[in-house]
Amino acid sequence: MQTFERRESDVRGYSRTYPVVFDKALNARQTDENGKEYIDFFAGAGVLNFGHNNERMQKAVVDYIQSNGVTHSLDMATVAKRAFIEKFEEVVLKPRNMPHKMQFMGPTGTNSVEAALKIARRVTGRQQIVSFSHGFHGMTLGSLACTANAYFRGAAGVPLQHVTHQAFGCETPCKGCTLGCGEESIERMRALYADTSSGVAPPAAFLIETIQAEGGVKVASAKWLQALQQLAHELGALLIVDDIQVGCGRTGSYFSFDELGIDPDIVCLAKGIGGWGTPMALNLVKPEIDKHWAPGEHTGTFRGQNLSFVAGREALTYFENDELMTEVKRKAKVMHAAMQSVVHRHPQLELTGKGMILGLNVGSTETSKAIVNQCFENGLMIASCGTGGRVIKLIPPLTIPDSDLEEGLNTLIKAVNRVMEAA
Amino acid sequence: MQTFERRESDVRGYSRTYPVVFDKALNARQTDENGKEYIDFFAGAGVLNFGHNNERMQKAVVDYIQSNGVTHSLDMATVAKRAFIEKFEEVVLKPRNMPHKMQFMGPTGTNSVEAALKIARRVTGRQQIVSFSHGFHGMTLGSLACTANAYFRGAAGVPLQHVTHQAFGCETPCKGCTLGCGEESIERMRALYADTSSGVAPPAAFLIETIQAEGGVKVASAKWLQALQQLAHELGALLIVDDIQVGCGRTGSYFSFDELGIDPDIVCLAKGIGGWGTPMALNLVKPEIDKHWAPGEHTGTFRGQNLSFVAGREALTYFENDELMTEVKRKAKVMHAAMQSVVHRHPQLELTGKGMILGLNVGSTETSKAIVNQCFENGLMIASCGTGGRVIKLIPPLTIPDSDLEEGLNTLIKAVNRVMEAA
Amino acid sequence: MQTFERRESDVRGYSRTYPVVFDKALNARQTDENGKEYIDFFAGAGVLNFGHNNERMQKAVVDYIQSNGVTHSLDMATVAKRAFIEKFEEVVLKPRNMPHKMQFMGPTGTNSVEAALKIARRVTGRQQIVSFSHGFHGMTLGSLACTANAYFRGAAGVPLQHVTHQAFGCETPCKGCTLGCGEESIERMRALYADTSSGVAPPAAFLIETIQAEGGVKVASAKWLQALQQLAHELGALLIVDDIQVGCGRTGSYFSFDELGIDPDIVCLAKGIGGWGTPMALNLVKPEIDKHWAPGEHTGTFRGQNLSFVAGREALTYFENDELMTEVKRKAKVMHAAMQSVVHRHPQLELTGKGMILGLNVGSTETSKAIVNQCFENGLMIASCGTGGRVIKLIPPLTIPDSDLEEGLNTLIKAVNRVMEAA
Amino acid sequence: MQTFERRESDVRGYSRTYPVVFDKALNARQTDENGKEYIDFFAGAGVLNFGHNNERMQKAVVDYIQSNGVTHSLDMATVAKRAFIEKFEEVVLKPRNMPHKMQFMGPTGTNSVEAALKIARRVTGRQQIVSFSHGFHGMTLGSLACTANAYFRGAAGVPLQHVTHQAFGCETPCKGCTLGCGEESIERMRALYADTSSGVAPPAAFLIETIQAEGGVKVASAKWLQALQQLAHELGALLIVDDIQVGCGRTGSYFSFDELGIDPDIVCLAKGIGGWGTPMALNLVKPEIDKHWAPGEHTGTFRGQNLSFVAGREALTYFENDELMTEVKRKAKVMHAAMQSVVHRHPQLELTGKGMILGLNVGSTETSKAIVNQCFENGLMIASCGTGGRVIKLIPPLTIPDSDLEEGLNTLIKAVNRVMEAA
Repeated sequence: MQTFERRESDVRGYSRTYPVVFDKALNARQTDENGKEYIDFFAGAGVLNFGHNNERMQKAVVDYIQSNGVTHSLDMATVAKRAFIEKFEEVVLKPRNMPHKMQFMGPTGTNSVEAALKIARRVTGRQQIVSFSHGFHGMTLGSLACTANAYFRGAAGVPLQHVTHQAFGCETPCKGCTLGCGEESIERMRALYADTSSGVAPPAAFLIETIQAEGGVKVASAKWLQALQQLAHELGALLIVDDIQVGCGRTGSYFSFDELGIDPDIVCLAKGIGGWGTPMALNLVKPEIDKHWAPGEHTGTFRGQNLSFVAGREALTYFENDELMTEVKRKAKVMHAAMQSVVHRHPQLELTGKGMILGLNVGSTETSKAIVNQCFENGLMIASCGTGGRVIKLIPPLTIPDSDLEEGLNTLIKAVNRVMEAA
Repeated sequence: MQTFERRESDVRGYSRTYPVVFDKALNARQTDENGKEYIDFFAGAGVLNFGHNNERMQKAVVDYIQSNGVTHSLDMATVAKRAFIEKFEEVVLKPRNMPHKMQFMGPTGTNSVEAALKIARRVTGRQQIVSFSHGFHGMTLGSLACTANAYFRGAAGVPLQHVTHQAFGCETPCKGCTLGCGEESIERMRALYADTSSGVAPPAAFLIETIQAEGGVKVASAKWLQALQQLAHELGALLIVDDIQVGCGRTGSYFSFDELGIDPDIVCLAKGIGGWGTPMALNLVKPEIDKHWAPGEHTGTFRGQNLSFVAGREALTYFENDELMTEVKRKAKVMHAAMQSVVHRHPQLELTGKGMILGLNVGSTETSKAIVNQCFENGLMIASCGTGGRVIKLIPPLTIPDSDLEEGLNTLIKAVNRVMEAA
Repeated sequence: MQTFERRESDVRGYSRTYPVVFDKALNARQTDENGKEYIDFFAGAGVLNFGHNNERMQKAVVDYIQSNGVTHSLDMATVAKRAFIEKFEEVVLKPRNMPHKMQFMGPTGTNSVEAALKIARRVTGRQQIVSFSHGFHGMTLGSLACTANAYFRGAAGVPLQHVTHQAFGCETPCKGCTLGCGEESIERMRALYADTSSGVAPPAAFLIETIQAEGGVKVASAKWLQALQQLAHELGALLIVDDIQVGCGRTGSYFSFDELGIDPDIVCLAKGIGGWGTPMALNLVKPEIDKHWAPGEHTGTFRGQNLSFVAGREALTYFENDELMTEVKRKAKVMHAAMQSVVHRHPQLELTGKGMILGLNVGSTETSKAIVNQCFENGLMIASCGTGGRVIKLIPPLTIPDSDLEEGLNTLIKAVNRVMEAA
Repeated sequence: MQTFERRESDVRGYSRTYPVVFDKALNARQTDENGKEYIDFFAGAGVLNFGHNNERMQKAVVDYIQSNGVTHSLDMATVAKRAFIEKFEEVVLKPRNMPHKMQFMGPTGTNSVEAALKIARRVTGRQQIVSFSHGFHGMTLGSLACTANAYFRGAAGVPLQHVTHQAFGCETPCKGCTLGCGEESIERMRALYADTSSGVAPPAAFLIETIQAEGGVKVASAKWLQALQQLAHELGALLIVDDIQVGCGRTGSYFSFDELGIDPDIVCLAKGIGGWGTPMALNLVKPEIDKHWAPGEHTGTFRGQNLSFVAGREALTYFENDELMTEVKRKAKVMHAAMQSVVHRHPQLELTGKGMILGLNVGSTETSKAIVNQCFENGLMIASCGTGGRVIKLIPPLTIPDSDLEEGLNTLIKAVNRVMEAA
């Protein structure tokens, strides 16, 4: 670790939480340089839905490399990109009758949010974006303005403008929360925008996560989302879903919003879309919006990552039938049952989540840190999220073997019990 | 191409310039799906300094993948990352006595600029950044504010704030330019900042490219850069060099500023740093600045790209001795001589550049487009840059074989002659 | 009127509502150049609390002028200014134990708000101001950002920044309003500011009118104001009361907040403070805040208006005993009873207000215009306010004779009946 | 003075420079409460062009008051306002063939600048304003952004946006100044705006003082102003002249720009326009610009000041013939000759100015303060301006008697000599 302490920036974070040097990784296990194995309930912050070094992707990528396939292509046309687009169209867009165009930006989530904001502002001629309390949308200046967390915002160094935060419509309101979420929050917004003397003008777009993963695994109410979309339509504003962390199968369906009764104008994808951990980002944009782009107006050097197209195409084959999603639903039940038992034992805890993303709010930063540390010592990588990191986030690879899932859950439960009972 | 027209966003650009579907690529040649080969004078917009599918990197990456090395690691410590850091320290930092810390952000150039702006603003407590006419620094809101081109700026949808553009100090002033570059521009700035009634306060940082690649291959004067650094020191402002396109060996030395007599506080690297086209970005930040980061204050999911660490480490071995840089200088002479002959024949043309990046200003968008198109028809990929794309940019892989270099130059020269003489 | 049409800016407004040329004015009557008299229920938009050409002030001012008193003095000390300050201290500040310092800015309400915003931002080191839906605070860029009305905001030409609008806590919620006012709005704000991931940081100040005069005569609930003050204290934010239109006796007490249980950090005064219509503005600033001003940091040429000091001092003598305020309360009852009878007859109307400012919401712009026009034809000057001008505002001089008050009320009631019954 | 120390805001400035309580004033003399007389070379910061208590105005105003003329009228039509407009049209606009409309805003200079900025932004659809180093345009947020002085800007508490400062084109460049003024500065701007990759877009307007009074009595070159206007025309930008301090006869002609060969789109007037020290502001706006105002879009309670109309109309009668302007030119020569003798004796001093406004740059804040203090002790009120207050500004009433002018000049010269020779 000395090398990192000597030369890596003080901004480094996870190497402090997990102070070992990792070497190998396979599916839901990661191994450090001393050979110690860790079950992975973190999945690269939601990137590794299909596990580390997914065999099918590994093979496809190595074949591609060894055949001298184009690696880096900006937005030139390549065979690998075409295959990805066609598979995405076949497996994702067509079955949903989604007419959306596919925009490849720079290969990070924040690039995709920045591009979405630009086109939303252009199409509407408005500047203001509404995002939501506890939302996380990235770290570059445009998306950071949409991110709610004061710690991240405090690093901007300039005022964060042209974004308003509103209360997020939680499915289940958190204990003691008085932020005023729920459907009446939509009514308040409707009143605000209807009243030309409210001081608040209709926005260009509402930018929403259906599950705020970084924000503490807060799950939006479907009714609230539908009401939000209705309001957006009334106002001539766009509905943008940031599905970067919980899309690509995490919730038991390709998109997190598949069964929520909404039809987003723009969908932001990244993290899992590249399949096995190489970067890629993709916006789905309705054609009547997309046509407002002029060629090359928004670019990014690394917007054509062919290894990601190849591995990402493999990932899409998981959605050609129901097998994986059925497995996800089954494992989700296992996870949920296990964690419910913890909450039963410690009723001050709160459990949220959907599909294979769960959040356990343990109430304090210290408790959360203690649990994460104990887990790591006992061979489980898990991380916290939400304000002050008070929520333990369970987000294992979708492909995690049952035995690893169980072992990981046991390790976590023991750690929670030990820490809670020591307190 | 129909797939792209049907489903890819209208924002796509290069697939319009090069309307073929690429399949394979090796060193300085790229092949389309019909088997037609193209010599590559574009190098993935400056990413592919070491050629497509560089054999050493290809082998190292495949070995790494097949050994189940960790692919994606955020800012956890990995064996591959350590090897990269240590090689970078050994080959780049130590020989130059550079104490800089290494910060890995999201893996794109714009991420690196955004991070640099944040820390510069924090350290100085100031908000304003000075960047320069014709500068290009990225597309996310913070870096876009530093980018000069009105076409890109026009897509922001909100005012671009907290950045002032000043005249860039060209080595050789362009014909007829009255932007007021040169060392007197430094004097004007000094006067501005010294005068508390100028309306202009000292900035947090000056953000500069030593060669404005996207801006039209404008080469900064060394004296001007030194004077700029002097001014920055006087003002308590940082000097940030964006070496994203012309670093990593392009100019005949690892950094473009190696022989320019300046010592930047922050250096932004991306494009070539990952070696063979997978994304990576890296900021070098002086320790006394870097220490103002708190852990995790600036993040990015894809900040730990191990394939890029592996290939990037291979790239660094090219700098263990003088071989490659000697070759670059030799090839640069070949390129320069060839293009000088063109300028000799068409004295209205202007040639700029240094090392293996040259710009030929052909005076109009139409002329430039015609030349690029003729080149492509005749098997040469080349692109334009600068205002209105009036400058043809020559930026082949550093590893281009002599025969390809000559053939490419001949194709270009013929195209220039034909187009200029038809006009 | 031709002179005005030929040469005065198209921005002129009231000369279109009242298309005559006024000549003389005395107490609550104004006379046009043809000798037609009008009862004044408008009082110069709330300036003329003590009537036109108030005899005591007229005499004092003429004496002052004829003695060659200094007229214009910036912030130099003058005898007249000292007399004003001392009288204000004696009559207003001391009886209330108010330690506030007196700041004289440029002589308009918007100057006073701008100065208050500056010092609030400096003292707290924060930028954001919270103002309220339907609030009106002026037309210069800083105060305009606090003003809620979209018509005025639309003229800014630049984004209005650093201000957030929240729901105003009406004493009696308007029919059908879902803006979410009331004390739960304070709880929502408390939750927002307490939650470091809400996306919203604590503000520098809350800027509030106790009665939103321009905003449609909306009266704040005392409990809500107290809760707002409590929240401000918790957050380290200032409470600024803009008492420009409803201060100086309008509500039956010198300050509109005298009996509301709050203790503002800054009070903005203008309009009535100069007594008889010459300009003056005055901020009352707690000493611990005021001391953060450096000499001359906020200036304004016309900040020393001695005619206003002289007349304004006369105005203060009205508060040496209870006589005027008793009269105001009595007349307020007369006004209220008369207007209640109208509401009784037309239950769709809404009546709000306090003391000698009443608002009658007639539901539509057209209805309101028709009533105002009929009144004017029948010798009553009255104006509308609120969104779309749907509220008829009754704001006669406090010194209006009973006969004029009755005649004016009769004229108004007839006009309302006629227009409502014609509809 | 205790009253002021006890109760007036710490922001007070002039009462510290002149620590006496003034009582009476007549023409160019002001008297304190102890009967000490001061010759006035300050003229209320340029307001009192026609002297304190100008006899003609005094009489007109008292007659008006005693006849119960309307005092305060917002933008209603009054007999007094019509008389003012007609006299202004007759004496000022018609002889110059100026088609401009007259807009009355709130009665301060900063109101007039704010209104000019709004309409310029609306008409052009652009946001950026160019103002100039050392320019002073007011203290409210919009005009403060145009003001150059860092002391004033530092009180804003928020970033000052949408304004760029350029070098002012001095008639005579200051010793050692390298801000880059002069006509080549126009060429640099032309190049900036012509180059779509300069990072700088054409502005809505150029806002300029022909003589920067607060900025240190810097006189613009006529050629430079003409070139600036030419550039504005080319760019579709407006030319706004802020003639608030040096208009109304100060330079020997009604407008300061009368003989400079420019035709401003908007002229901002305040200070002297009201004649004798009561507030008033007036914008002259070309009709094709003015028509973009909708009624009531920019307002201000005190925009109809009838005492100022009455006194201001008297002031206009001074321009019915050449008498006063001939006198001004004569006195200007006296002032200039006297001060030239001082510069002759102390060659390190710099003298600037035109007509009856002169600036003597004495090189340091301390020197300047010492001179101002000595003058005051010896019965001369004079103030400093410019960065650090290093410039002594001579701006007596235009109506000053020769004897007072001479006495004042002698007092000043003695003070300068004494202080310079003591140093």
